[in-house]
Amino acid sequence: MSTFIDPKSIGKPVRPRRHVRTLTGYLPETDASGKEKWPRGEETVWKGAMRDVDTDVSSITKSFVNHVQTSLARQPYNLDNLGAYQASALSVRDNLLVNWNETSLQYTRKAPKRAYYLSLEFLMGRTLDNALLNLGLKDKYAEGVEKLGFSMEDILDQERDAALGNGGLGRLAACYLDSSASAELPVWGYGLRYKYGIFQQLISPEGDQLEAPDPWLDNQNPWELPRLDVAYEVRFYGQAERLHDGTPRAQWTGGQEVLAVAYDVMIPGCYTKTTNNLRLWESKPKRGFDLNSFNAGNYEGAVESSNSAAAITSVLYPNDHTTFGKELRLKQQYFWTAASLADILRRFKNIGKPITQFPDYVAIQLNDTHPTLAIVELMRILLDEEDQPWAAAWQIVTNTFFYTNHTVLPEALEKWPVPLLEHLLPRHMQIIYDINMLFLQSVEKKFPGDRDRLGRMSLIEEGFPKQVRMAFLACIGSRKVNGVAELHSDLVKTTILKDFVEFEGISKFGNVTNGITPRRWLDQCNPELSALISRTLKVDKAVWLKDLSMLEKLLPRAEDKKFRDEWAAIKQRNKERLAHHVQVTLGLTINTNAMFDVQIKRLHEYKRQTLNILGVIHRYLTLKSMSAEEKKKVNPRVVFFAGKAAPAYYIAKLTIRLIVNVAKVINADPDTKDLLSLYFLPDYSVSLAEVLIPASDISQHISTAGTEASGTSNMKFCLNGGLLLGTVDGANIEIAEEVGESNVFFFGHLTPAVEDLRYQHTYHPVPIEEKCPALAHVLNQVSAGLFGDAHVYEPLLNTIRQGDHYLLSDDFDSYIAALAMVDEAYLDRTEWVKKSIRTSAKMGKFSSDRAIMEYAESYWNVEPQHVA
Amino acid sequence: MSTFIDPKSIGKPVRPRRHVRTLTGYLPETDASGKEKWPRGEETVWKGAMRDVDTDVSSITKSFVNHVQTSLARQPYNLDNLGAYQASALSVRDNLLVNWNETSLQYTRKAPKRAYYLSLEFLMGRTLDNALLNLGLKDKYAEGVEKLGFSMEDILDQERDAALGNGGLGRLAACYLDSSASAELPVWGYGLRYKYGIFQQLISPEGDQLEAPDPWLDNQNPWELPRLDVAYEVRFYGQAERLHDGTPRAQWTGGQEVLAVAYDVMIPGCYTKTTNNLRLWESKPKRGFDLNSFNAGNYEGAVESSNSAAAITSVLYPNDHTTFGKELRLKQQYFWTAASLADILRRFKNIGKPITQFPDYVAIQLNDTHPTLAIVELMRILLDEEDQPWAAAWQIVTNTFFYTNHTVLPEALEKWPVPLLEHLLPRHMQIIYDINMLFLQSVEKKFPGDRDRLGRMSLIEEGFPKQVRMAFLACIGSRKVNGVAELHSDLVKTTILKDFVEFEGISKFGNVTNGITPRRWLDQCNPELSALISRTLKVDKAVWLKDLSMLEKLLPRAEDKKFRDEWAAIKQRNKERLAHHVQVTLGLTINTNAMFDVQIKRLHEYKRQTLNILGVIHRYLTLKSMSAEEKKKVNPRVVFFAGKAAPAYYIAKLTIRLIVNVAKVINADPDTKDLLSLYFLPDYSVSLAEVLIPASDISQHISTAGTEASGTSNMKFCLNGGLLLGTVDGANIEIAEEVGESNVFFFGHLTPAVEDLRYQHTYHPVPIEEKCPALAHVLNQVSAGLFGDAHVYEPLLNTIRQGDHYLLSDDFDSYIAALAMVDEAYLDRTEWVKKSIRTSAKMGKFSSDRAIMEYAESYWNVEPQHVA
Ligand SMILES: Cc1ncc(COP(=O)(O)O)c(C=O)c1O
Ligand SMILES: Cc1ncc(COP(=O)(O)O)c(C=O)c1O
Repeated sequence: MSTFIDPKSIGKPVRPRRHVRTLTGYLPETDASGKEKWPRGEETVWKGAMRDVDTDVSSITKSFVNHVQTSLARQPYNLDNLGAYQASALSVRDNLLVNWNETSLQYTRKAPKRAYYLSLEFLMGRTLDNALLNLGLKDKYAEGVEKLGFSMEDILDQERDAALGNGGLGRLAACYLDSSASAELPVWGYGLRYKYGIFQQLISPEGDQLEAPDPWLDNQNPWELPRLDVAYEVRFYGQAERLHDGTPRAQWTGGQEVLAVAYDVMIPGCYTKTTNNLRLWESKPKRGFDLNSFNAGNYEGAVESSNSAAAITSVLYPNDHTTFGKELRLKQQYFWTAASLADILRRFKNIGKPITQFPDYVAIQLNDTHPTLAIVELMRILLDEEDQPWAAAWQIVTNTFFYTNHTVLPEALEKWPVPLLEHLLPRHMQIIYDINMLFLQSVEKKFPGDRDRLGRMSLIEEGFPKQVRMAFLACIGSRKVNGVAELHSDLVKTTILKDFVEFEGISKFGNVTNGITPRRWLDQCNPELSALISRTLKVDKAVWLKDLSMLEKLLPRAEDKKFRDEWAAIKQRNKERLAHHVQVTLGLTINTNAMFDVQIKRLHEYKRQTLNILGVIHRYLTLKSMSAEEKKKVNPRVVFFAGKAAPAYYIAKLTIRLIVNVAKVINADPDTKDLLSLYFLPDYSVSLAEVLIPASDISQHISTAGTEASGTSNMKFCLNGGLLLGTVDGANIEIAEEVGESNVFFFGHLTPAVEDLRYQHTYHPVPIEEKCPALAHVLNQVSAGLFGDAHVYEPLLNTIRQGDHYLLSDDFDSYIAALAMVDEAYLDRTEWVKKSIRTSAKMGKFSSDRAIMEYAESYWNVEPQHVA
Repeated sequence: MSTFIDPKSIGKPVRPRRHVRTLTGYLPETDASGKEKWPRGEETVWKGAMRDVDTDVSSITKSFVNHVQTSLARQPYNLDNLGAYQASALSVRDNLLVNWNETSLQYTRKAPKRAYYLSLEFLMGRTLDNALLNLGLKDKYAEGVEKLGFSMEDILDQERDAALGNGGLGRLAACYLDSSASAELPVWGYGLRYKYGIFQQLISPEGDQLEAPDPWLDNQNPWELPRLDVAYEVRFYGQAERLHDGTPRAQWTGGQEVLAVAYDVMIPGCYTKTTNNLRLWESKPKRGFDLNSFNAGNYEGAVESSNSAAAITSVLYPNDHTTFGKELRLKQQYFWTAASLADILRRFKNIGKPITQFPDYVAIQLNDTHPTLAIVELMRILLDEEDQPWAAAWQIVTNTFFYTNHTVLPEALEKWPVPLLEHLLPRHMQIIYDINMLFLQSVEKKFPGDRDRLGRMSLIEEGFPKQVRMAFLACIGSRKVNGVAELHSDLVKTTILKDFVEFEGISKFGNVTNGITPRRWLDQCNPELSALISRTLKVDKAVWLKDLSMLEKLLPRAEDKKFRDEWAAIKQRNKERLAHHVQVTLGLTINTNAMFDVQIKRLHEYKRQTLNILGVIHRYLTLKSMSAEEKKKVNPRVVFFAGKAAPAYYIAKLTIRLIVNVAKVINADPDTKDLLSLYFLPDYSVSLAEVLIPASDISQHISTAGTEASGTSNMKFCLNGGLLLGTVDGANIEIAEEVGESNVFFFGHLTPAVEDLRYQHTYHPVPIEEKCPALAHVLNQVSAGLFGDAHVYEPLLNTIRQGDHYLLSDDFDSYIAALAMVDEAYLDRTEWVKKSIRTSAKMGKFSSDRAIMEYAESYWNVEPQHVA
């Protein structure tokens, strides 16, 4: 040490804080006899002071009141519902942390193989209710807050969604974490702590979607734990120089260094002590980063410029199923995978095994191609830092990773320009070239002279610029690859990865049909139905919620009128709950005596909200032309839409605009408004889904065949006794297999037909008037200005008139027929309720518990660890 | 409510969160009989759950361990000292908050007049030790953490300073808060929550000061409480239009709106329940601020640009005693005063009195001119929002504010360019013009035809650009004006505000000599001395620390050898503690048998560190020329410097460089190093002061006469038994009055001489060789390269050779003579210790308790409020 600071050493603290044993993952030392030694201080004092989970009402109120006094520094005189929410959340958080600690200690003691779920999105929604249910403490807390003058319902309603995701992919990750913890599996999630989650959607009076930022951390987040001493340095840019010393090593230096700091989110399992972890990384400037410029007298400016590092985790990209070559997005991906791998490696090294055993202790699941750089980063670490020969390193890597494909849509397949990668991650680009060379050599060996094949399979796509095909890299760098529903997995194997199946063998490719957690998507969002099920099965929900196939025992009750009446009454109350919610939040009055028809999901051409709204218009025009007598036979219907469009997705936003303006006309038309009304509910979110789904009679999942990989909201509706109107696509197919085709309303062309139809559309302009006069009529009415601003919608209508990539003109008639079948079926209410019961009863397969066990057993090879 | 969002209303949440009663300041309602009603829930449950301050060791360990488990989520297996600090701090914070709540409730119930201390700087230092001492719980906590295997000393050492200030002005604010709480006065502080405090000072091997940012919030700050629902909107830019409706009203619209969010810092009084508040504002973008650009498809960019609002409270300006017309600094000042006034007004309105009674309930102290805009802002609120006529508004304003001047240095007197003010705060500029016009009219009435006087006194200084003289505005807008030491207050009245004294009368102008809190600056930093005093006085420190004049009872003990020996032994141990600190942090070994000679304060020409280092060189040259025999008689001396220079203050940084390079030569010279050594300790801070001050034998306060308003570190040294070598300046004079001139080493020219001498220097080049050969020799040696890099120091040396504004050439000889007297006095160790004891014993006057009571009684008219 010395008085002086060498400017070259700048950035290192003068007096480095030695953080001994601050990270998790330390164990008690043992004495000669193998007995654990107490680490420090008097064991009795420590143990006497340690707390357990609060389970009685008086400990709960005490903890609540103490948090009011201290953490919030409030008086009972000025505590509102938000404060009461915060106090409850802090108190529940304390309980979760007790379990979280014990779980971590258990994992460290036992050192089992662990799995890590790398996902750029985690769409968690609210936490308090879920945590209370999983802890089994909801009633106790409700009683406690009641005594203190609050209602649990109002308190729960104060929480802001954690919305770090766009849609299905992010919500799936959240369900899988819940199931992992519930199954007591040692699984952690890794993601990014975006300062702004998915934007808040506002709708202007013209029907335009406006995007407002989602500063979800503004009110502080009791569900995360900053781990300021878990931090890693991540490098960008700089130079990579191969050592040429007979090893594959290289040195990567210079550039920008950024700090990744961990924030931990507790993931409680259902009715178990197991509480897993979701670790989210925040980017920060490395201390002193801009130091050299300080001395030039520009001190304030230099402090400010440190903001650039913080930008990395500033905002979630609001795009779903599209790619875009933004440097910042690539920075996010590398930042996140590098920090996560560094953390995983540190944990692995704590157990003292040789690096070659890494895959025996670590499985890493890649949720889509977003984390594919992890494959390259692990290679880099093994080669350059762990000094492994190439073959050994590749062996480790390909036994560690597992890749889940989520889409076969070409526009969603990630590619990154080579020049960008070369600039941002020079060493990684070298490694990608090396991987590719060795890989193509082995392809050439197996298929000598098949140049086409080499071109097709190369990790590098030719062009200006050249691009790296991330799905191929993910595929060859992984031990197994899977799709997310039967049909989709088949498509993966027969289309985008066909060559790879031929080269690597079919056994590497599998399917794990997605699932949903019945805790949130039944017990939490539909407590009355959950209670009815428990009563009927005479089984505690603690049991059937973790073994969802037990629902099958409800099947015979479909014939029981009393049960059916209770079932139907609950659906009705859920419809009223939704209506109440809409009344309070939007000031609109909804007819709860109508059928509720719901389509809620991201706005996307492939999901065909346009088909739905055109169907609504068709229905409206039909109603308008009916006599009063005819109208009497019509089944009243309320149509709900909700969903966000990517901010730059022009066509999707036009669809929203059309829906909003159709709604204005229809809802105001005295001729028809009792029979048909239409609502676009702004700002779709997990919490809104929890109110909408239990209230749905019928929901629409009407993607062009072969485009929706799985869908998961379809499962949620069915689990809550909503029926399904859909195409033969994604998980719809498996749902129908389970519940029986008679309980699902299918329509539309099948996948094998799609390619030909598209080919036709491309080379032969679509003759809509001839082919589908009903659709033509609808389009003409829109064009004619029935819903105002005729010209505005032309680009949207033209997507059908020209090219019709998503086959609206092919499916419209059968769609209208299917809607009519739904109407007809709904008229026989007894039969409808039977269908509803039968549907729920057969949803066992779609529990994410089943899915996660498939991953654990057939992919990761990890086993449950019971925490006593 | 409706489904739609009008883009014009953007920025307001769709569904406004109604925060009822979330702010502090609500009281229980009373029933018909006047009995308080319990606000909600079951009173017995609430009261049974409420906690009090933990005072026994087992509650303390329980609270510590619980925080380890929950707030930190750690195991005893991985808890290090930093974690133990955090757990202790969180536990102490809980206790503080209990008292803080009760204090607030008491103030609300009683609604006494309150005072607010507006300061742009609060140099708080560390909190844990201070809090434990003020709570009287230090021993209990020490015992508790000991049982848990930690040492209190190590734990305390983990805390990072809160360094939201440059020097004396900020530290004074901190001492005043401590004294206010200790005296049970209802006083709050208002400041800014800078993300980066004063920079960390690093020293390069060449001796250059480098500045590193101070990210003090990185490890989380347990001493602040975010009050996310206490937030105000602050406007910048835009248009101001007078209504011309017969009232002085105007409307200010458009521009940028920024949110100010409150963070509360608990200020515990010493041995009292009273725990006051320091409210710091953080700037945040107003939600949706950049929303309109979002829709253009630039969503991510728009989210990023919201950073500009955050920039306002990003960094403390690192300048002391200089001004600089930066727009961001002006933004800081307005942001802070606007938020503070809005908050004060809201609190006042809660008590339901007419606005004309505002000054009966509110006193606002302006710490220097930084918050002067508060005067204009209150005018704006009264005129434009409260609809008060001009005269009534001005009456309220001038009875509310009190202004403390901190400097008569011309370069430190704040002025803001009119065009900048007009642009940033158009309405305020109008009001300033109006104030000025009415003011000058009344001056003209009193001194008809005295145009010179009007020009001198105008709030607007002519020139390009015109500038607003903030000190004049502060003066005329306040009820009273004071300086901070006798001499300084006289100078204020006879120089910069002379005209104002003539116009407004002398009684408006006063003096409150600064003070320091004996809790931190004796009990905490010198626990052994504190204990000796308690033993000797046979009085608990709880008593004498709050009545510091009791120290006088030590006077007779100066004659008691045993007492003197104890006194001297403590000084010696403090010197060793300092030496140990330097050894551990810098790796340097210090001779503790030498006299410790200390100058620690901001680097500034007026403070004359240059005089000191030139004196050191003189001493070195003298030693070099001595025979071995002569050297034996020399008193060994270790000279310490510490202090930061403003990053752009070239001459001050050169002084540091000279000190560092002289140290290198001297400390390495075997001829002299046992007799003279020299250290520049980097990164001066409150915590470093706490180690340095108790170890000092002699400290230097050698500003050019008339330049240092008060100085407060001089008081700290004397309180700890260090003697003072100084000029006849600032509080040095009053210290000498108290302790007797025989106990102080004075030198140099007096204030009245300064102006003439400067005049001489300006018009007659300084003939250093003739006037002061000793100095000339020293300068020549530096120029000749004795300490390397001769040319580098020329600009510094030239400040003396040319102009010599700070009179080094005039004072050098008497300075050297004074140093010799110090040496001589030190040789008689018995007499020296007597001086030391007598000095401490007479420091009662300089307790900040005395100072704050003067403000409370003679300025603010606020009274103590005991919290039971
Ligand atoms: C908020 C949110 N977005 C998106 C989805 C995925 O919907 P889908 O499977 O219909 O694409 C869900 C699932 O329920 C959801 O809750
Ligand atoms: C860190 C710090 N800076 C500056 C000062 C003020 O010093 P002075 O009164 O010598 O200017 C003090 C007072 O002790 C201090 O602690």
